[in-house]
Amino acid sequence: MTLDFNSLTEEVLAGDRYFLARLLSLIENDDPKGLEALSLLYPHSGKAHLIGITGAPGTGKSTLVNRLAGYLRNNIAVPDVEGKNKPVTIAIVAVDPSSPFTGGAILGDRIRMRDLTGDPGVFIRSMASRGALGGLAKATSSVVEVLDAAGFDFILIETVGAGQAEVEIARTAHTTVVICAPGLGDDVQAIKAGILEIADILVVNKFDIPGADNTLRVLQSAISMGYPDVHIPHSENIPEEDTQKWIPPILSTIATTGDGIANLTDAIERHRHFLTTSGEKVRREREYMRSRMEQLLGDQLVTRFLNERLDDRFELALDKVLTRELEPRRAVQLIIENKLL
Amino acid sequence: MTLDFNSLTEEVLAGDRYFLARLLSLIENDDPKGLEALSLLYPHSGKAHLIGITGAPGTGKSTLVNRLAGYLRNNIAVPDVEGKNKPVTIAIVAVDPSSPFTGGAILGDRIRMRDLTGDPGVFIRSMASRGALGGLAKATSSVVEVLDAAGFDFILIETVGAGQAEVEIARTAHTTVVICAPGLGDDVQAIKAGILEIADILVVNKFDIPGADNTLRVLQSAISMGYPDVHIPHSENIPEEDTQKWIPPILSTIATTGDGIANLTDAIERHRHFLTTSGEKVRREREYMRSRMEQLLGDQLVTRFLNERLDDRFELALDKVLTRELEPRRAVQLIIENKLL
Repeated sequence: MTLDFNSLTEEVLAGDRYFLARLLSLIENDDPKGLEALSLLYPHSGKAHLIGITGAPGTGKSTLVNRLAGYLRNNIAVPDVEGKNKPVTIAIVAVDPSSPFTGGAILGDRIRMRDLTGDPGVFIRSMASRGALGGLAKATSSVVEVLDAAGFDFILIETVGAGQAEVEIARTAHTTVVICAPGLGDDVQAIKAGILEIADILVVNKFDIPGADNTLRVLQSAISMGYPDVHIPHSENIPEEDTQKWIPPILSTIATTGDGIANLTDAIERHRHFLTTSGEKVRREREYMRSRMEQLLGDQLVTRFLNERLDDRFELALDKVLTRELEPRRAVQLIIENKLL
Repeated sequence: MTLDFNSLTEEVLAGDRYFLARLLSLIENDDPKGLEALSLLYPHSGKAHLIGITGAPGTGKSTLVNRLAGYLRNNIAVPDVEGKNKPVTIAIVAVDPSSPFTGGAILGDRIRMRDLTGDPGVFIRSMASRGALGGLAKATSSVVEVLDAAGFDFILIETVGAGQAEVEIARTAHTTVVICAPGLGDDVQAIKAGILEIADILVVNKFDIPGADNTLRVLQSAISMGYPDVHIPHSENIPEEDTQKWIPPILSTIATTGDGIANLTDAIERHRHFLTTSGEKVRREREYMRSRMEQLLGDQLVTRFLNERLDDRFELALDKVLTRELEPRRAVQLIIENKLL
């Protein structure tokens, strides 16, 4: 079957999963047809709640994401077109900086499918990195926009923490959940993950492992430093609702048994409510989209600039930089100002 | 004392560590004075051997980097201006996506100083992330260029693996060492770190921990997939020198005792030799600098574009994107083509 983008768009909006998967592949491959379809779909997006879930390898993220998806699916309902309650639909985007050697993303899909297979309300997509810095973040944004337009109520974006690109991906989300676990090197390193400041909810997973209490305490004191005027509640006690300020609660879970998943869901729902009532949701979306558009502007300007000036000025400057005659920043400035000899 | 960039540059070239530290701070803060000094220093760079060392949290990277620095310092010599052998000098750049809550980078410096303090031939600089994607990678490049110009023979760039930005930083290096360790979640996740394909040398650290053999085997089979026609040597056996192709050796170390550090140093020296004799060094530097200059070009074009067009076109497009009237990519295209209504 040939794929023209009009029918592709219609099929995706009608809920066809096969065409959805095809479209996501086109978008991941930067295919013009995929981008055309994205333009048509974009007006239908903006309804889903985006949950970013990040943490270091070994924290049990994938298990937790699967549990959470199952729990949301069974316990949260939204009205359908006729006003009757129906279970929420869920898309999972697993962003995985896998090695091209191992094809980890595909393997990941298969392993996950075993848990959630047969449930038409759950759609799973793994994405692997493709080299260039920031490329994965860009592709993830587009994939999430398509899933949003396709009508999923919750989109779980799972990333491996610690990296800048992953932090950036987490910023796409409305609610960011940071997963920690005991026994992963020293506790200072857990804090160094560079992602605490973006956490809306913190989770100590594997809470049945020795040392979990200590991990919890370290997180509490780290969070306290960020909110010096507030008493950080211990463990399960989610703070009383405040419409102006959100203090990240620290929860404990055992993803393998499902312990604590109900609490996590509750915290996510509270945060979702907070975002709307406080106006924070609008602010976040604007901030995120501004930085995304600045990046896109940079990409398009470079492409046009290099295409328009077909002389070998860039190569010439590169030569001079490599022979140490010119410093890279200065070289780029001279290229732009047309001052390169 | 006021800092004019001429004297700053001269002091740095003369080996003054206080001015070096000041200059690096200026560069990290994107201070124009720092960038001016970098331009003056750049012609003096290009002599150091850059070693990237990356791995997940908990692999013992910092301990290994300290050991390696000490070993290189005591065992590798280079001729000085009078032709007499002198121990190599070493700079360590610890790139750390620390939370602004904890000030991890500063803490890190102090902890490290205890080990290597008093050795004037070793200079340590920690860098923490500052938000924007790619910002850290750009600052690291400039910091490394200054240290190179300042005359350090080896520059060790330590990054926390798994993230795209960290992979990008590792690409700055001539020789990239990837550290793994047993007992960090399952072995599949170690491979998923997304950094195997950039490894010139693989190290299984903490080789005294149970499960180390298994980690080694998993790495061997992962590497074998990338080099299907080659027998991957086990453990310490570094392959016979081949001037055209480099197969990443897999070494084992116990950084806490220093076991295996001599082997690692040997592998680094062989790789350094390979890079020169094969022409790979020139190719790598060119490829790296090309992508760096393209990024700088993007930054400068965006800044100029937004400064030149002081109307509210960008804000207008952002509004339309947020109300879902326009898809971000299309919006940026319309801004550039001046077609926005």
